[in-house]
Amino acid sequence: MPASASRSLIRPSLDWLLVFVPIGIIVRFVPRLHSPTVLFIVSCLAIIPLAAWMGRATEHLAKRLGSGIGSLLNATFGNAAELIIAIFALSKGLEGVVKASITGSIIGNLLLVLGFSFFSGGLKFPKQEFNRTVASASASALTLAAIGLTIPTIFHQAATRVPAQAGGWTVLREHQLSLAIAVVLFLTYVATLLFSLVTHRSLFAGEAETSEPSEPQAEALTWGMKRAVIVLATTTALVALTSEFLVGAIEQTRSRLGLTEVFLGVIVVAIIGNAAEHSSAILMARRNKMDVSIGIALGSSMQIALLVAPVLIFASYLFGRPMHLEFSIPEVVAVIASIIIVEQITSDGESNWLEGVQLLSVYAILAILFFFLPDLH
Amino acid sequence: MPASASRSLIRPSLDWLLVFVPIGIIVRFVPRLHSPTVLFIVSCLAIIPLAAWMGRATEHLAKRLGSGIGSLLNATFGNAAELIIAIFALSKGLEGVVKASITGSIIGNLLLVLGFSFFSGGLKFPKQEFNRTVASASASALTLAAIGLTIPTIFHQAATRVPAQAGGWTVLREHQLSLAIAVVLFLTYVATLLFSLVTHRSLFAGEAETSEPSEPQAEALTWGMKRAVIVLATTTALVALTSEFLVGAIEQTRSRLGLTEVFLGVIVVAIIGNAAEHSSAILMARRNKMDVSIGIALGSSMQIALLVAPVLIFASYLFGRPMHLEFSIPEVVAVIASIIIVEQITSDGESNWLEGVQLLSVYAILAILFFFLPDLH
Amino acid sequence: MPASASRSLIRPSLDWLLVFVPIGIIVRFVPRLHSPTVLFIVSCLAIIPLAAWMGRATEHLAKRLGSGIGSLLNATFGNAAELIIAIFALSKGLEGVVKASITGSIIGNLLLVLGFSFFSGGLKFPKQEFNRTVASASASALTLAAIGLTIPTIFHQAATRVPAQAGGWTVLREHQLSLAIAVVLFLTYVATLLFSLVTHRSLFAGEAETSEPSEPQAEALTWGMKRAVIVLATTTALVALTSEFLVGAIEQTRSRLGLTEVFLGVIVVAIIGNAAEHSSAILMARRNKMDVSIGIALGSSMQIALLVAPVLIFASYLFGRPMHLEFSIPEVVAVIASIIIVEQITSDGESNWLEGVQLLSVYAILAILFFFLPDLH
Repeated sequence: MPASASRSLIRPSLDWLLVFVPIGIIVRFVPRLHSPTVLFIVSCLAIIPLAAWMGRATEHLAKRLGSGIGSLLNATFGNAAELIIAIFALSKGLEGVVKASITGSIIGNLLLVLGFSFFSGGLKFPKQEFNRTVASASASALTLAAIGLTIPTIFHQAATRVPAQAGGWTVLREHQLSLAIAVVLFLTYVATLLFSLVTHRSLFAGEAETSEPSEPQAEALTWGMKRAVIVLATTTALVALTSEFLVGAIEQTRSRLGLTEVFLGVIVVAIIGNAAEHSSAILMARRNKMDVSIGIALGSSMQIALLVAPVLIFASYLFGRPMHLEFSIPEVVAVIASIIIVEQITSDGESNWLEGVQLLSVYAILAILFFFLPDLH
Repeated sequence: MPASASRSLIRPSLDWLLVFVPIGIIVRFVPRLHSPTVLFIVSCLAIIPLAAWMGRATEHLAKRLGSGIGSLLNATFGNAAELIIAIFALSKGLEGVVKASITGSIIGNLLLVLGFSFFSGGLKFPKQEFNRTVASASASALTLAAIGLTIPTIFHQAATRVPAQAGGWTVLREHQLSLAIAVVLFLTYVATLLFSLVTHRSLFAGEAETSEPSEPQAEALTWGMKRAVIVLATTTALVALTSEFLVGAIEQTRSRLGLTEVFLGVIVVAIIGNAAEHSSAILMARRNKMDVSIGIALGSSMQIALLVAPVLIFASYLFGRPMHLEFSIPEVVAVIASIIIVEQITSDGESNWLEGVQLLSVYAILAILFFFLPDLH
Repeated sequence: MPASASRSLIRPSLDWLLVFVPIGIIVRFVPRLHSPTVLFIVSCLAIIPLAAWMGRATEHLAKRLGSGIGSLLNATFGNAAELIIAIFALSKGLEGVVKASITGSIIGNLLLVLGFSFFSGGLKFPKQEFNRTVASASASALTLAAIGLTIPTIFHQAATRVPAQAGGWTVLREHQLSLAIAVVLFLTYVATLLFSLVTHRSLFAGEAETSEPSEPQAEALTWGMKRAVIVLATTTALVALTSEFLVGAIEQTRSRLGLTEVFLGVIVVAIIGNAAEHSSAILMARRNKMDVSIGIALGSSMQIALLVAPVLIFASYLFGRPMHLEFSIPEVVAVIASIIIVEQITSDGESNWLEGVQLLSVYAILAILFFFLPDLH
């Protein structure tokens, strides 16, 4: 959830879902009530409002810290909830779920969040306009990310045809390749931050300003430093706790519901982790603030690919069980397809409801694929 | 063959080919003259003018029915000739030919029709301009369609690596997946009709109007209701009859000429089925009406992908031998390559003869591929 | 190195590298000093300034010959150094190196040359603008080329699944397919020349003119006919000699340094062969002449794909050992990925330093791939 602090003042009425936080704790620790499927569903529902509050606290803190460090904080912790869930999954060796949730977050933000935004905005306005330049800047970062996430798979496909002693595929080489690519992606993310926060900040500042005037009391409502820190610490702790419940229940839920790892990661976990982005982006689209809406969807996808994915690779070395970036071919195709159609649809700087339907159709087609697809190990 | 009724008034001088209709009947029913190869060629030639007359009758009828139902009729029956041929081929179990002709119709319209239009128009005018917005709207629908037609192949490639009892590939799952995707594509087509005929009709009306003034006697020449219905009924019956001849002769012709199913479908059947589009689009390009020209080429491709392909899947269930949407990898690559180069060439809203040559070169490269490619079963 | 003669007047200070020409001769012919690795490195360094002088002589000769034949000469001999190296490698049967250097020249020009140009230009200017139309014309030629270079690989992958007697893959069919595609690519190149030198020369003339005024003494400095011919003949002979050294030392150097054929071709040979383009393009970017900079990078890539690659196929028949155009899948992916990101980044007619970093990141990711990739035979 990047940039524009004005979003912090939108309160999507998801707060009643907070009731699932204590329910989750009860289900987890009262032995008679214990049921993995129930715990999984309750944890999913509990994370949605927690992630939203975490985002809000981050933005308020960012405002208090001033534009320099504040923007950095905002840009870096935007997807903290996804990251926490993924790190728990990683620590339990659920590498398949982790990678599927990276794929799912990217396509979910690009197709589902943007699709619903264009669709619901388009029902109110026949044509909505947005800043083409900013959209296209995110798009090229996404293409770069897609190339980075595709290469390990290409390496695997090609190198397995050669015996290991002749330089063919080995787990070690796959890890070295992935680590090297993760470093490149991470450095590109740092360069992107330098660009948007230092050398070309005026380009992006304009975006935030335009959304300000409509919220005259915005500044007044900014939380105090203390409050922001307390809320951030509390929500982070609760997200961590609930993520631990969720991840602990994944395996059993999966086999009971007959779902594959990849479907669970790509569709379920990704929708949960991005629920806050969904509600904000759609709200902004209905207020005809398409730049904010697109900034959330594209920015969040970019952050997952250039920041979260590399950080997970680095983290996997801390856990002593290195993860590589090799995705299955269907996942690679899903990411590439999403990026291509989004670039094409956003390249003219205009949206309408049909374009929303087209994005949602692509999401539906990919969801059908992942529903039928068996787990590939 | 979508929208703009003005095209109905262009009479490409293909009418002399009507002589092959009776010749076909003679060749088919006079035992001494019977030769599959001759029957195949004669049927091909006979379908060309019949398809053109069918299109014309549809458009006149559409005009008489008024803009609402008329436009719907026009938009839905535009590729009726292709559909009739494909349904006959399907009923004889020639699934390979059916799918190859879907591929061929898409790449034929995108590369051959558009390529010749840009080339021949470009020989007369150094630079020709067209409405970028309408071109890009069709382009994103085509991208969506390409994703839909690619996914079953990706599923097949990935799922065959897993044993069937572990959720791997089975014919049933491939059929379910294809049917689900066909439903999504069909619903997207319905949404596209709603967009162009109801919520945003003014966007597309402009296109038709601009081409009107140069045909002042257009309205006067519109056929009466009765005449339109009779011509439509007659040509439909004749197309059906001739398609039956053509499809019946395919298998024997193929083995005699040493052609593969895929070459026959992609190159021969596709050129025949789209001959009417070819002549109209080129004529309009030479009159510098590039919007109409592009509307024909892109619109026809989009209709094949979003309407004809799903309808064929639905029809295959009526015949009791379900077809799936899994194309061979070369077909998928051909469709994706065509869409990418067309999008790129049309994205600037200008054309010249070199761009026509580039499209034709891609067509030539793909035709070379399908010429050398064996049938993959 | 296409068009604009003004570049001939930029003298990148690479001339001191000429000292490696005599050093190379000594290393090669004095038995005591003979070392393949040293000879390889010395030859690489010697070719850099020779290629630059060859380019300069070609451009001066082109000016003297007048715009018709001159432009043709300029457009055709722009990549002569790469061609000479490749022909020597071909004559020694190093087909893998030849193809890898085609791949490498394309991605090197697109990502490295353009990336460094955007980056170093972007450090001086916050935003640089260029002619979108010319960039997009080269881009569609590159897409066409990418399709042409991909199809033989697709054919191979599909046809090897079918037995040879049923029409499956054979070496002969691969050669026929490649030759047919090479003819199409070559004819497209001829059409491109006709377009830029005959029917639409004014479009491209504008580009050259704008760069003229800043070099008022340009015309005065044009070499005499005699001088140009002598320099061209001498440098061509020296490039040929040094290429012979370089190619002769490749195999032994490779095994000593533990590098694969593909890494050597894609990364090393490609950087050497394009060093002159690098220095000119970057210099022009720092002078804010982005059109020249982009013309060099895109034009050179296009020439490799549409002229050099087909000519190498034709030449391989003269040597009696026909080469085909089938690239490995990683090479195909690298070329497609480069073209896609370049098109996207250049499509808005603006560049900045971050876009340079993005191109360089993609190059780094591809270099990592080719470093880890074993040779695939």
